[in-house]
Amino acid sequence: MSQKRIAIFGSTGSIGTQALEVIAANPDMFTAEVLTAQTNDALLIKQALQFNPNTVVIGDEKKYLIVKEALSHTQTKVFAGEKALEEVACLDCYDMMLAAIVGYAGLKPTLCAIELGKPIALANKETLVVAGDIIMRKAMEKRIPVIPVDSEHSAIFQCLVGEGRNKIERIILTASGGPFLGKKPNFLVNVKKDHALQHPNWSMGAKITIDSATLMNKGLEMIEAKWLFNLTHEQIQVVVHPQSIIHSMVQFDDGSIKAQMGLPDMKLPIQYAMAFPQRILNNFPRYDFKKPNTLSFEEPDIKTFRNLALAMEAMRQGGNMPCILNAANEIAVYAFLKNRIGFLDMTEVVEQTMTKIPFIETPTLEEYFETDGEARNFAASLIHM
Amino acid sequence: MSQKRIAIFGSTGSIGTQALEVIAANPDMFTAEVLTAQTNDALLIKQALQFNPNTVVIGDEKKYLIVKEALSHTQTKVFAGEKALEEVACLDCYDMMLAAIVGYAGLKPTLCAIELGKPIALANKETLVVAGDIIMRKAMEKRIPVIPVDSEHSAIFQCLVGEGRNKIERIILTASGGPFLGKKPNFLVNVKKDHALQHPNWSMGAKITIDSATLMNKGLEMIEAKWLFNLTHEQIQVVVHPQSIIHSMVQFDDGSIKAQMGLPDMKLPIQYAMAFPQRILNNFPRYDFKKPNTLSFEEPDIKTFRNLALAMEAMRQGGNMPCILNAANEIAVYAFLKNRIGFLDMTEVVEQTMTKIPFIETPTLEEYFETDGEARNFAASLIHM
Repeated sequence: MSQKRIAIFGSTGSIGTQALEVIAANPDMFTAEVLTAQTNDALLIKQALQFNPNTVVIGDEKKYLIVKEALSHTQTKVFAGEKALEEVACLDCYDMMLAAIVGYAGLKPTLCAIELGKPIALANKETLVVAGDIIMRKAMEKRIPVIPVDSEHSAIFQCLVGEGRNKIERIILTASGGPFLGKKPNFLVNVKKDHALQHPNWSMGAKITIDSATLMNKGLEMIEAKWLFNLTHEQIQVVVHPQSIIHSMVQFDDGSIKAQMGLPDMKLPIQYAMAFPQRILNNFPRYDFKKPNTLSFEEPDIKTFRNLALAMEAMRQGGNMPCILNAANEIAVYAFLKNRIGFLDMTEVVEQTMTKIPFIETPTLEEYFETDGEARNFAASLIHM
Repeated sequence: MSQKRIAIFGSTGSIGTQALEVIAANPDMFTAEVLTAQTNDALLIKQALQFNPNTVVIGDEKKYLIVKEALSHTQTKVFAGEKALEEVACLDCYDMMLAAIVGYAGLKPTLCAIELGKPIALANKETLVVAGDIIMRKAMEKRIPVIPVDSEHSAIFQCLVGEGRNKIERIILTASGGPFLGKKPNFLVNVKKDHALQHPNWSMGAKITIDSATLMNKGLEMIEAKWLFNLTHEQIQVVVHPQSIIHSMVQFDDGSIKAQMGLPDMKLPIQYAMAFPQRILNNFPRYDFKKPNTLSFEEPDIKTFRNLALAMEAMRQGGNMPCILNAANEIAVYAFLKNRIGFLDMTEVVEQTMTKIPFIETPTLEEYFETDGEARNFAASLIHM
């Protein structure tokens, strides 16, 4: 079997660096063909020197010369800027894109890869939240698989292997509940960034860790799942499972439930998506059922964690509403991370933006882009950014 | 799609009657083509009048005339006696055998069906415990599937759909622990039949309910799993899970675990085995994760429930040792059900028989039959039956 050439869009983030660990551990299976970073030139250079990719892109154009200089003695091509991300995504030099750019910025390169007919390992849930209908329709047309990297969606994807997609009764997304499980608004109002960044189970990037603390992450995952698995909103259930051992479940129409489980470790779903349909032997730590232990389940508290209720509402309404939700949320989370607004203010920003931006039932891609821009501007104006 | 003609060997038992409920609920998918019973002529007649099978067999020859007379106005052929079970199993008038005869008696008809090239829905674990190597080799030669009906093995089978069989790291069989979970020998010594017949989660026949109370059932299931899924004894782990919601699990060699779950209801695995590779929509009650609930896990207490340790030892030794274990256990359980011996005496009977009957490393089918007879005789002599 020849090596699979991976283009990692977002190679210096949490998913990207773990994907490179997987590639380093399986040099007979994978090469890193494209690496891209937004601002972290130092790590991008280090990665390029180790993995010797065909091409690297640094998003921040001011850092082009630094990267170019550092790699001048290598064969690696260096590009810079947002436009270059798209152009490189359109180059037919890789076999699979790992779409690991955080947020809305991951959308356009992913669309390029799909147009090119490349399988997608999708770690960027915003791509589907914003424009899931267009993405999945294009992927269907091009007959390319979109393999989720999110642990929950990877779990569902794994549970569906060998099963009929039309036999899904519902999916059950598990949520850890985040660091503030069981807390009430009078506690949350005072939560600061450092506290919210301490996730009990998963080691992830800053944006997704805040989204986990507000439960917005689970709401985005519901929308992502709707598109990935072609479900109605009634077929998607969220259950709080604080131990994060069951990563998610599928209930089939005969009542049988399949779950995928394991210790929380993002390397497993990353590796699974990259190697699918194979599994790769590894020595990651195993979950030990012999130790006395319990797995617990409860309903999410959507009265306290209102972001989840807003996401459910956006999913129910459809159209450009999830795009509005996502754009406002990105602005709100970054404002919170900069200590500009409080924890509960994030919900206010999202809710007000959802009320303000005009609803479009069946947006075009251009209308999604416009909606995104309008929602960001309005959300930023609320914060006086 | 034409209907699948099912031959139910053991139609009046717990599995058989539930299989007929599945057939009655799905008349477009299944017909009951053969029904057999050991002694329950009244129920066999009733079933034959309802399902209009091609053939029925009553094991107890004294009841032949009763059954023949009752069905004389129908097209159904009536046979009697143990030999007739085998002969009917060899008739090419059905598409799948549901092997639901309890105990060793199910072995020979199952072998006939395999020789005939008929897929097996296997509810009779003793068939594999006694002669799993021969059964599975023949099934492999004939390229017919052996689809388990036991909830645990059905769970594993379902988890393996679409996965590589060579990617199994281990399987984790869950055990409810039975009605005496947490009890110690000083309690068990006084246990009576009526108490042991009250299983906390599952509604099953008497033999298997006692085997569940002693944990011998889990031991037999380990051996069954070894053959069904071509595993080494080191790859099979038992975990006590008192809620019986997770029916069993597979851990793959990338560390990912798949579990199959649901409310304990034997109709689901029966239906799954009969309909495989399809799933049949039904309205069986669903497990509700929204209610606060916990699933717990602990190691089995094999010092107290020594039957499980004996079964593990028989599996480890291989050869005719599982056959010896099974034969002695059948004698011991029926003696206990007749109040001839105590609860802990069952273990003594099995252990002594395992020590006494000569070990054969690679038995022929004839040697299995001989071993079975010798072990039964010896076990019976211990009980003075």
